[in-house]
Amino acid sequence: MKLLEDFIAEKGRVYPGNVLKVDSFLNHQVDVRLMDKMAAEFYSHFSACEITKVLTIEASGIAIGCSVARLFDVPLIFAKKTKSLNLGDDVYVSRVSSYTQGKEYDVTVSREYLRNTDKVLLIDDFLAIGNAMKGLIEICDQAGAGIAGIGICIEKGFQPGGEDLRKMGYNVLSLATVESMTQNGEFTFKERS
Amino acid sequence: MKLLEDFIAEKGRVYPGNVLKVDSFLNHQVDVRLMDKMAAEFYSHFSACEITKVLTIEASGIAIGCSVARLFDVPLIFAKKTKSLNLGDDVYVSRVSSYTQGKEYDVTVSREYLRNTDKVLLIDDFLAIGNAMKGLIEICDQAGAGIAGIGICIEKGFQPGGEDLRKMGYNVLSLATVESMTQNGEFTFKERS
Repeated sequence: MKLLEDFIAEKGRVYPGNVLKVDSFLNHQVDVRLMDKMAAEFYSHFSACEITKVLTIEASGIAIGCSVARLFDVPLIFAKKTKSLNLGDDVYVSRVSSYTQGKEYDVTVSREYLRNTDKVLLIDDFLAIGNAMKGLIEICDQAGAGIAGIGICIEKGFQPGGEDLRKMGYNVLSLATVESMTQNGEFTFKERS
Repeated sequence: MKLLEDFIAEKGRVYPGNVLKVDSFLNHQVDVRLMDKMAAEFYSHFSACEITKVLTIEASGIAIGCSVARLFDVPLIFAKKTKSLNLGDDVYVSRVSSYTQGKEYDVTVSREYLRNTDKVLLIDDFLAIGNAMKGLIEICDQAGAGIAGIGICIEKGFQPGGEDLRKMGYNVLSLATVESMTQNGEFTFKERS
């Protein structure tokens, strides 16, 4: 998606450890118009899939997840990263280790909201190692829910998450795939198909 | 807002410790259509205020925050609860203690995204004790940003947050104010003005 690549090239900043900071428009300050335009791309790609739920993970997947769920006219579920007192015990749980936060956490979804009759579109803002997404897949598997596809805003093409998920057979649409980036702010993107 | 009261009365569940669980439509599974209708109420109330930013707090404020920011056509900022490696040091910080999670955490916003020229609409899904909202206010004060008002989906009228904020002089709009609730699922709401 050229618009997203332009945002990354113009506003993205690269920090040591292959950290790509895009928090001026994606995951701290949010450009809601951009979210809606990205959501339209996901809708166009997955519209024939009879999606019943959009599933993402807090916190930075929620903004794009809402825009996508609106277009499909289905509920958004955001998986929780910490088990709060409000959640109850009747949950699916998957353990995830976070690259950027340097720690492990549990991802949970209430059993009530994900069923074996659901057809789920998984959405996230970033795909790098892919651990968070694999956690969401495990939760769908626990629920017996079908996975129609995976929509990612920014994939780091030089990290293995995307290739892993495609090898597992999932229909993965990444709107921008960063092939390389430098701390001077030079980016190359995978050619758009 | 009658629609939101109906959602609470029909789908809300009450747990010991005055916990109101509305995670079937507000803060785990999200009814995006309801978010948009609530956002329209906030827009109608605050539309003359020349809002430049909508500020909320991760994670459960993001869904309603996006819908509100779309209507005002301004960026959403969501304050972060844990300092990740990606955020950098140049942040406003406020310490908040959470009632539902039983712990303290830092709320942070990058200095870059909030300026003394901003006029901010604060949005959150819940108002009870009010600690999270007071944290956001402190962050706006640190930035020298103006606070145009506070929009809350569900206020617990039997807890002091709303009264505190109104005494502080803020224009607080709560779309549903729960005056009492029982574990049998009986709710009374403050009369709508």
